[in-house]
This record gives sequence, C-alpha cells and structure tokens, in this order.
Amino acid sequence: MKRPLILVVNDDGIFAPGIKALVEVATTLGEVLVVAPNSPQSGMGHAITIHDPLRLRRTKTFGEHIESYECSGTPVDCVKLAHHVVAKRQGRQIDLCISGINHGSNASLNIIYSGTMSAAMEASLEGIPAIGFSLDNFSWEADFEPSKFFVRQICEFMLSEKLEKTKLLNVNIPKLPLDEIKGMKICRQAEGRWIEEFVEGKDPAGKSYYWMTGRYDLHDTGDDCDIWALQNGYVSVVPSFHDLTHFAAIDEMKALEFETAF
Amino acid sequence: MKRPLILVVNDDGIFAPGIKALVEVATTLGEVLVVAPNSPQSGMGHAITIHDPLRLRRTKTFGEHIESYECSGTPVDCVKLAHHVVAKRQGRQIDLCISGINHGSNASLNIIYSGTMSAAMEASLEGIPAIGFSLDNFSWEADFEPSKFFVRQICEFMLSEKLEKTKLLNVNIPKLPLDEIKGMKICRQAEGRWIEEFVEGKDPAGKSYYWMTGRYDLHDTGDDCDIWALQNGYVSVVPSFHDLTHFAAIDEMKALEFETAF
Repeated sequence: MKRPLILVVNDDGIFAPGIKALVEVATTLGEVLVVAPNSPQSGMGHAITIHDPLRLRRTKTFGEHIESYECSGTPVDCVKLAHHVVAKRQGRQIDLCISGINHGSNASLNIIYSGTMSAAMEASLEGIPAIGFSLDNFSWEADFEPSKFFVRQICEFMLSEKLEKTKLLNVNIPKLPLDEIKGMKICRQAEGRWIEEFVEGKDPAGKSYYWMTGRYDLHDTGDDCDIWALQNGYVSVVPSFHDLTHFAAIDEMKALEFETAF
Repeated sequence: MKRPLILVVNDDGIFAPGIKALVEVATTLGEVLVVAPNSPQSGMGHAITIHDPLRLRRTKTFGEHIESYECSGTPVDCVKLAHHVVAKRQGRQIDLCISGINHGSNASLNIIYSGTMSAAMEASLEGIPAIGFSLDNFSWEADFEPSKFFVRQICEFMLSEKLEKTKLLNVNIPKLPLDEIKGMKICRQAEGRWIEEFVEGKDPAGKSYYWMTGRYDLHDTGDDCDIWALQNGYVSVVPSFHDLTHFAAIDEMKALEFETAF
C-alpha cells in the first residue's frame, strides 16, 4: 500500500517545539510535507493574505530527509500553498493534514481565534481529513511526549476508517503525565467567553496604547463539553465543521415572519 | 425611550464608502459609535492582535457629531476595544453592532475568511445582537443606496424583536437597483469552495513570490441557500453561530467506537 502523504502545519511557527512532535509521529505513519509559518501566528484565526505576495522557502529544519518549507503567510496561507503549489507540482495528493501541536488549549470558543484550527479547517474545506492538536500548556518547554501517544492513535483513526462526516477534529490534550490521562472523549464545543481587559500604557512618545489580556469564563455545566473533558483528565476530541448556519435561529426568524414583515 | 447605542465597524477600513452608508442609517436609529480599522483588513477572518499594542485615535471622519475612532488592529480588535474600552469608560452598553457594508459578497464559506463577519461574530459572543452587511459588488464606487433600505429594516428587526436565538446575521445584498430586488430571504450557508490558483512571479531581486487568486465553485443545488438567493435577486439573510461542533460527526465517531477502540 502507498504510504499516505501527511501535511504538517502549525501557527506557533516552524521553530516551535510542538510542530517537531507532530513531525516525529507523522514520519512513522507516512510521507511528510511540512509547510509552516516563518514567525509566530497565534490568534490569526482564518486570516488569509490577499494584498501581498507570499514567500515559500525550502528548509532543513527537520533534517535532510523531511521536505519542509517556511512560509511568510498565515497558517491558512500555508495550507493553501502546500495544497495548490507544493503538492500539485509534484502530482501528489495530501491524505491527512495535522496542525500543531499548539502551545496552549484551543478548546471551547478558542477554535475561532486559533490559527492552528483554522489551518486544519482550511484543509478540511479541500476535502482533506484534518486534525488540530493543542496541549493545555503555554510553556515553550512543555513535554509533548504524552501528546504523541494520542496524536498517533487519532491520526491512525482518521487515516484508516471510512469516515463520511468526520473531516475535522479539534483535539486538546491535558497537561498531565501519560499515566494520569484517563483516555479520549468525543465532545461538543463548550459555551464560554473571554472576559477581556485592556492594559493601557504610554509609549516613549507619551501616546496611549492598549494591550489585550483576559481570562476565560466557562458558561457550561455539561459533562459532554471539551472543557469538562480537559478538566477531568481526558483528551477532548470535538468534530468540527465550517457551516456556521444557526438552524434554530432560522426557525425563530420564520416564526416572526421576518421575510414578509416589512 | 432611550435611543439604542449602535456600534459601526467594518473590515475595508474607516475611509471605505461602505461604512459611510451604515453610519448614515445608524444615525436615524440611535446613538452611533464608530470604531474601524485605519487600513484595509479584508480576509483577516477572526484574527486578533496578541503580541502587539493597539492604537485608538479619535477622528472626525463622519463629522463633528459622530463619535468615531480609527484603530490599528483587526476588525475583531475594533469590536473588543469598542466594547471593553470606549463604551465601558462611558458607562454605556452597546445595543447593536453592524459591520460593513463590505465591498464584495460574504455569502457561503466566505463568512470564515471575512473580517466583516468576524467583527459581527465577536460582538455576538459578547451577547450584543450583530449583523454583517455585504454588497455583491467589489467596486469602490458601488451604489450603496439600495442597500440602505434593507440595512434599516434588518436593524429595526434586530432592535425591536424579542429574539432569543438570533444573535448574528450574515446579510448579503445583490448588485441590483432597489426596484429589481425581490425581497429578503432567510437562508442557510451554501456549500461551495474556492478553487485557488497561485500566480508565481519574480521580484526585482529574482526571488519567487506567490500571489493568491481564485474563483468560487458552488456545490449546492438547494434553493434555500444564500448563493441561490443572491443569484435570484433576493437579499440573503443567514442566521449564524459560533458553535462549530459537527453533531452528526459525533454520532458517526461514537458508532465507530472511537473512544474505546485503542
């Protein structure tokens, strides 16, 4: 059987420790292609570069034998270039896209701001099965060894099963040693919000600036949501989707005769 | 009755003609606060600025009597600053957020890349009813007069009705004279994708660059989707939501015994 082609991407940049962990697992499962940002791109969401040219540069970041490129754009740009430029020129199809491992959780509504998850979603829009992995630990020195165990299992699942509906997974891993992680849990996205504060300061010229900071506030008591799973020692796995239609609101608006009320 | 406070934002930048049209309608409906990017931010999706300070500068772009600020950040940053810094300091609550009018459609999956819609979604995450408006016309000289008619009606609906589920609308307006627009249609987000091509060029130093271009490919034959409505002369109104959980995929994964298969 032909070995699958696995695209590895991230948002923390090609030199982040988290992407190295993904590359290490991917090389045991298939051929690896890395296209990752040349600078940190956290919080870039689904941003794309429209008004500027993009650069792609071959690197040896992961050794001589791993095809790897750094890109001047966003995580989503990386996936577009990997698919439409790099793989296409070689006449190859990407079989799986894995993104991360993000330094910090992307559970709950963080999926919306996350470059890691947006890169994975972009691949899923192209019909490529995709997984975003995040470790609930912001430290650059985080231990990614326990994560690798779950990365391998979930990649094998996405590569082997005949999945019709499951094209995109948001996987978050608790900050625990492997033997304290209880298992994996399929979840829905938790309801919550960010309570933002802006720190105001003065620059050397005396002009005001604002710097965002904040804390997450959980508004969800369900034991089927991703935050619950993480807080209780499980790896949370949320199947996700790019259709943002709110069908319950369609019913509500129709009941209010919105279309004909004016 | 107290006049509602209406936040106006966009992604094309504070000097774009589209935002002027929104401000004109908003002033007839309530108090207006404008916080908009100081440069074009198309395609920024839900990007936020984490690693840099943000600037906010009072302007008179819309005359002496309209409180208006330009912001150095993304459309989502604008909403965060408007809510957490500007309104909060004044002890005021934003009652409605309107974003746009975008120069170009944000129907179908464009919602994901759209700074216009991400700004509106950010407001909805704060519990503020929010609407993103887009005109299916990329021209800077587009005629926004027909759009204003629908902007007013939809704003009145969002301000007056007791909506429990409808917090965020993606509104797209066809490029037609007012008397040729057939009405408004509540829709779901159409299935489709972008067929991307990258134009490769050489910079003056002889180095390659890639510039994204592409065309939209509709994969949807339903007459209940937003692209159908636009193509058939209707204003499309898609109630949208920030929960990306794919519930059908949860069922599929459970049936495959994902949680216990390893």
